[in-house]
Amino acid sequence: MRKVIFNRYIISMANKRKIINDPVHGFINIPSDLVFDLIQHPYFQRLRRIKQLGLTHLVYPGALHTRFQHAIGAMHLMMSAINVLRSKGVNISDKEAESAYIAILLHDIGHGPFSHVLEDTIINDVTHEELSRLIMNRLNVYTGNAITDAIAIFENSYPAGFFHQLVSGQLDMDRIDYLRRDSFYSGVSEGIIGSERIIKMLNVVDDKLVIEAKGIYSIEKFLVARRFMYWQVYLHKTALAAEMMLISILKRARLLVSHGEDLFAPPQLRFFLKNNIGYEDFMHDTKTLDNFMILDDDDIMSSIKSWISADDHILSQLSGDFVNRNLFHIELRNEPFPEEEIERIRTAVKEAYNLKDDLECNFMVYSGSVTNNTYSPSDENINILYNNNELKDITEASDMLNISVLGKISRKHYLCYPKTVLSREQ
Amino acid sequence: MRKVIFNRYIISMANKRKIINDPVHGFINIPSDLVFDLIQHPYFQRLRRIKQLGLTHLVYPGALHTRFQHAIGAMHLMMSAINVLRSKGVNISDKEAESAYIAILLHDIGHGPFSHVLEDTIINDVTHEELSRLIMNRLNVYTGNAITDAIAIFENSYPAGFFHQLVSGQLDMDRIDYLRRDSFYSGVSEGIIGSERIIKMLNVVDDKLVIEAKGIYSIEKFLVARRFMYWQVYLHKTALAAEMMLISILKRARLLVSHGEDLFAPPQLRFFLKNNIGYEDFMHDTKTLDNFMILDDDDIMSSIKSWISADDHILSQLSGDFVNRNLFHIELRNEPFPEEEIERIRTAVKEAYNLKDDLECNFMVYSGSVTNNTYSPSDENINILYNNNELKDITEASDMLNISVLGKISRKHYLCYPKTVLSREQ
Amino acid sequence: MRKVIFNRYIISMANKRKIINDPVHGFINIPSDLVFDLIQHPYFQRLRRIKQLGLTHLVYPGALHTRFQHAIGAMHLMMSAINVLRSKGVNISDKEAESAYIAILLHDIGHGPFSHVLEDTIINDVTHEELSRLIMNRLNVYTGNAITDAIAIFENSYPAGFFHQLVSGQLDMDRIDYLRRDSFYSGVSEGIIGSERIIKMLNVVDDKLVIEAKGIYSIEKFLVARRFMYWQVYLHKTALAAEMMLISILKRARLLVSHGEDLFAPPQLRFFLKNNIGYEDFMHDTKTLDNFMILDDDDIMSSIKSWISADDHILSQLSGDFVNRNLFHIELRNEPFPEEEIERIRTAVKEAYNLKDDLECNFMVYSGSVTNNTYSPSDENINILYNNNELKDITEASDMLNISVLGKISRKHYLCYPKTVLSREQ
Amino acid sequence: MRKVIFNRYIISMANKRKIINDPVHGFINIPSDLVFDLIQHPYFQRLRRIKQLGLTHLVYPGALHTRFQHAIGAMHLMMSAINVLRSKGVNISDKEAESAYIAILLHDIGHGPFSHVLEDTIINDVTHEELSRLIMNRLNVYTGNAITDAIAIFENSYPAGFFHQLVSGQLDMDRIDYLRRDSFYSGVSEGIIGSERIIKMLNVVDDKLVIEAKGIYSIEKFLVARRFMYWQVYLHKTALAAEMMLISILKRARLLVSHGEDLFAPPQLRFFLKNNIGYEDFMHDTKTLDNFMILDDDDIMSSIKSWISADDHILSQLSGDFVNRNLFHIELRNEPFPEEEIERIRTAVKEAYNLKDDLECNFMVYSGSVTNNTYSPSDENINILYNNNELKDITEASDMLNISVLGKISRKHYLCYPKTVLSREQ
Repeated sequence: MRKVIFNRYIISMANKRKIINDPVHGFINIPSDLVFDLIQHPYFQRLRRIKQLGLTHLVYPGALHTRFQHAIGAMHLMMSAINVLRSKGVNISDKEAESAYIAILLHDIGHGPFSHVLEDTIINDVTHEELSRLIMNRLNVYTGNAITDAIAIFENSYPAGFFHQLVSGQLDMDRIDYLRRDSFYSGVSEGIIGSERIIKMLNVVDDKLVIEAKGIYSIEKFLVARRFMYWQVYLHKTALAAEMMLISILKRARLLVSHGEDLFAPPQLRFFLKNNIGYEDFMHDTKTLDNFMILDDDDIMSSIKSWISADDHILSQLSGDFVNRNLFHIELRNEPFPEEEIERIRTAVKEAYNLKDDLECNFMVYSGSVTNNTYSPSDENINILYNNNELKDITEASDMLNISVLGKISRKHYLCYPKTVLSREQ
Repeated sequence: MRKVIFNRYIISMANKRKIINDPVHGFINIPSDLVFDLIQHPYFQRLRRIKQLGLTHLVYPGALHTRFQHAIGAMHLMMSAINVLRSKGVNISDKEAESAYIAILLHDIGHGPFSHVLEDTIINDVTHEELSRLIMNRLNVYTGNAITDAIAIFENSYPAGFFHQLVSGQLDMDRIDYLRRDSFYSGVSEGIIGSERIIKMLNVVDDKLVIEAKGIYSIEKFLVARRFMYWQVYLHKTALAAEMMLISILKRARLLVSHGEDLFAPPQLRFFLKNNIGYEDFMHDTKTLDNFMILDDDDIMSSIKSWISADDHILSQLSGDFVNRNLFHIELRNEPFPEEEIERIRTAVKEAYNLKDDLECNFMVYSGSVTNNTYSPSDENINILYNNNELKDITEASDMLNISVLGKISRKHYLCYPKTVLSREQ
Repeated sequence: MRKVIFNRYIISMANKRKIINDPVHGFINIPSDLVFDLIQHPYFQRLRRIKQLGLTHLVYPGALHTRFQHAIGAMHLMMSAINVLRSKGVNISDKEAESAYIAILLHDIGHGPFSHVLEDTIINDVTHEELSRLIMNRLNVYTGNAITDAIAIFENSYPAGFFHQLVSGQLDMDRIDYLRRDSFYSGVSEGIIGSERIIKMLNVVDDKLVIEAKGIYSIEKFLVARRFMYWQVYLHKTALAAEMMLISILKRARLLVSHGEDLFAPPQLRFFLKNNIGYEDFMHDTKTLDNFMILDDDDIMSSIKSWISADDHILSQLSGDFVNRNLFHIELRNEPFPEEEIERIRTAVKEAYNLKDDLECNFMVYSGSVTNNTYSPSDENINILYNNNELKDITEASDMLNISVLGKISRKHYLCYPKTVLSREQ
Repeated sequence: MRKVIFNRYIISMANKRKIINDPVHGFINIPSDLVFDLIQHPYFQRLRRIKQLGLTHLVYPGALHTRFQHAIGAMHLMMSAINVLRSKGVNISDKEAESAYIAILLHDIGHGPFSHVLEDTIINDVTHEELSRLIMNRLNVYTGNAITDAIAIFENSYPAGFFHQLVSGQLDMDRIDYLRRDSFYSGVSEGIIGSERIIKMLNVVDDKLVIEAKGIYSIEKFLVARRFMYWQVYLHKTALAAEMMLISILKRARLLVSHGEDLFAPPQLRFFLKNNIGYEDFMHDTKTLDNFMILDDDDIMSSIKSWISADDHILSQLSGDFVNRNLFHIELRNEPFPEEEIERIRTAVKEAYNLKDDLECNFMVYSGSVTNNTYSPSDENINILYNNNELKDITEASDMLNISVLGKISRKHYLCYPKTVLSREQ
């Protein structure tokens, strides 16, 4: 039987290190003992081993920063935002401020390794938001219900709605931190935004977050920078190819395990490969979350390396190509690929790799589409506050931003397959 | 039987991506097809999975950069240096330049995960320099002897000695890159050095590297920055504690495996835990290097997480504390700790953790010393070139730097043990 | 009689300093002796005493950088651009490259102090482009016709049109440098653009400059950053107020001098206050250009300080308020100000300052409008090059940028007058 | 009669802009209305027209920043320092904090244009400290004695001595700001210091400023950076040559004016050329300070340009060479120049420029020495605080820094004369 590890965790009472050195924001102060204890908790420390941008470092080698750094950085921005709002006369108690810090600190606590990859492969239809909520509830018990309000802010059930908007909205501290941080570590300077300036423009009207009118150009820049980062970094085609290979590898591994094959994997990963885990399991079996809480990027990468020597030639091929960065060819288009083009590639791949049927071919040829929408007005607005106290949505206030475009989802179609076939094709 | 993976590696002939985006130096051009092919090789790609600063990220969360990034960055500086020297009339052929790029690119290729940790635990007395040489020889075969001169430069057998000095000397491109890079990623701005200015001051006299006299203040700054980084980052006491815990964990795991215990580990790590690997094995059994070439940080971290549930309570305790960053207390002193003080701590730890003898206690209490010397004049000099063509050693040329100190080894003594005992003690 | 100063200029043959330290781009190499000699020429050195952003430093105290720095920086970017184009197979001779460097270096040589202010006050209807051409012609004589091709590039009469586009076009090195530099010195980080990335995307098709398709997001960011800088910096309302006060001061001084008043001014400024200088004078009287070539920001500022003690109470009032940064109140609106509102202010100002008629009031109350258009498609396009060699205008290629807005001129109306009246009004 | 300008100054009561955008420190908040009013005062606004580094921009073109920016920046650091000290339990009242902000804000208020140049030429033996005190006293009257304590801190008569140390000591906010700022604007990255880290290490023991022991490496870096900046920037030989030419020009102009020559100069400069102004004049004649308070860099530069056409050929020659950056040759040596070498140069210069005697030659050939001492232990110490509450001087605490060197004055000898003679010589 596996032991539960967290009983062993002892909160250190003395010497609470209060400053963290962050290359992006400089020295970050930890605002309270409760926050310190949450950061020290194994659930939060785990985020040190989960990269913020998954496989993007295969394209931008510096993009190795973790969800740990991002969560701390977003909390730092929340501290600035609370300061700015208070200086404008918004009434925020110390308790509320601490709850806001904790809400943003924990907003991504439910992320597993290679977030969306995982959600599509080794667990079934469980979102990281659902997991965040589960984990926060455990932490609430752990802290003697000290984070009840933080959870309410996270879930948008706290009366003063602007707190939730600061955690999760069109202009939240999450996005402001990740844009700057992802820019910094990828070396893509175009994503740098004037976070200080945006935060200085925040205000609250009727418990809603607004931006003062003179901040309108900053918001335009923020939205364009975000769009830039989407196409240049987040949906970079080479990183997409790597991600699709990873999905294939995990699906193949799970299939093999379900057929009784004894693939190497550490217990925390084997658990998810062997069992068919869904939301109900997380709810009703504490072992499920216990296992999830020690699963991270390292387990996935370490296992895939060992699978290079697997007997299954598809898993072996995919794992070797993935580990050695011999990534598949990928093409993006605005229009869907013609069926016959896809079929031609599939036939070539089947032949080249001795695949016996379409099912096997699905592991080696991927087609579909990805989307990005920078600003979704249906969802929630960025409201601009004018001197006469009038409010306007940013898409109305800005004569620059094309509302019909910003509200529209951009869709790109892809076709992805081994490079060896490409060279025969051309 | 494990297959050898590298046969599968096919050099992609088309689409050689020639630019790498580096947050530290900006866009880096890959200078030639040969260099490109070496970067693509699995042996080099492996460096993407080995952190430059090992466990330092437990103190400076941003310090996650890899040996891959550092090697590319150092090559970039080498390109600048060659340009500067050529502009001063130093005669360097294109072939020599390429060899210099390759020599610096591969200078750290032999590093395993958590470099010195590994050399002390799961392999016996094999230095990373020896492994680098072995691997370069394999790559020389792979490239049809294209890197023979690069190896000569690395080994300091190439006639024009300044090439080796640029790779490995008091002011080599290795150090200049790592100081800047480690500063950048740790957020410790004090380590930032004016690499561009230092490189502009390089010259060659009688095939030896020299610094022009007006660069003397830059060198002073370089040496002080290096010293700063040593005490503030490289030998940070908390990172030292983590490193010593890691050594203990690996030693304990190996001991258990040698007693027949079936610890979880991926094949590439199990190989080194089970066998007693020394230099001879690397020389005579290709399987040894094959295994080493797919071993990285991820295997170590993933395994240690699974060892939290080990039956052995020492391994379990150490692994849990390490993974959850419940790091041991450490104290540094200029003088050795008195024997009785060490003994008192050991007794307390034995009692607290039910350790049965001194041998077991060695896994939980560590004492010893660490050293640092910034500039060792015995080794090799930084020569300053004056306008009258006179040469002087930097320690003679600078009226600021205390030669007796710079040449002296600073030694600090440490005592390190679980925090729980500390709180009882105080 | 005033002596001509330039005969005294002796080209230093030895010790040509080849590197300039630029906080924005780092070390800048001077590419040739001819370029060095042009930089050393008093006409170019004069640019050290003309601020790039005129009075903007009254709002952003760091914005003190000069046209000298900008011209050198733009030349540096031209060197990068030429390198990039050559690496893509565009055939550019060394002579052509040098001409391109000189064309961009001298493109702003005709600017006087507080550029547009001057063109509206102490000289009549002479643009800085006309002056640049005149000065380049003088420098062509001085260099023995060595810069004939550079002049052709500047005037867009050189056959290969892309050279002119690099000097003066929608995406020229001028704009790329000034956006980065103005951002840097004003501390408005939102204007920072990825100049390196844009330049890497340049190419030439049929002697026209194009941007490769994957650079489209960089161009979007460039255009939005430019727009941001317009409203946040270039047309900052406080700087506008200061500029209008300066115009008023110079017009008043000239009026007084034309009435025979003996205002203090250094000879180089007195020349323009006393005479009614137009383009013909520059063409036919060498003394005019000689005087212009030693006129700079310092003369204007020094004289205005002495005018604080002028007998004319309007000049004295304006000068004191200007020097001591007691700047006028200014309001910007999308709609024109109603006539009655303007009249009410004028009446109040007349009374407060004992002004005797409307003419005098014009020196103290300013109304009108300013405009900005970020991208004018009528003028010249930014062409995007697709992989299939198709070309599209950026406004067509980008689904984000609102062409109707980008092509449209934004106009803002202003009303500006002393703050003392404001406080009575409100 | 000249009017006094300051009566006209009206404190704006509304719209006190509370934020300044600083490229070095980011957004700077103005902490109080009193501070705001002092910044708005013409005496302080004047600092906008006085460059921090005088003529250094002739070597580093970006070094155009002003004493205005530096004073605001130093105040910002003072705000950080007060925060840090309060967080460590040092008891500082709001009134004291404000006084500290004002003391550092005004510490350089007495600087005239090209500070030391001026003190040696157009005023006699009046230091800028004496002028600062005079001006502060006037401002104290102006503010209704609101800055009495700030003056006490400045003069070191305030009981809690650490306030004065923060304004003027070995590690004051003045030095920390100027090192960072001068580095930033000159583009000499080696001068960058970790100001945030140093300030975090400050503490107070017995009303004395101390540095906590773990800050020792930061202090070492600070001292070495300061030394670096001295030789690389502050005492750069080309800037020294320009400064000596400027001194010569002003001395020559004053000599000519004393002989009755009618040189052009704005009234505020003519006042100092015509009269022989010493400390007594500043004390007893308010006109003297009134004139000084509107004198700045612009008057000097504007006048020198007009002197290019002076009848006196020495003034004309020097002015032309200075304005057009045809700077004199300068050589630095550790040993004094032999008398005969100096004499040979003087003879050559006399001949080349038709100088009639030694007196005239003194305006064209300069010899002497400059000195720099980085840390003067006699003056005041940097005390290091150990955990056991022991205090040690930095030179004792650091095993790196060579005390005998740090305490020693470095002296360099120079010889400076027109380049034309140089070329004949060699």
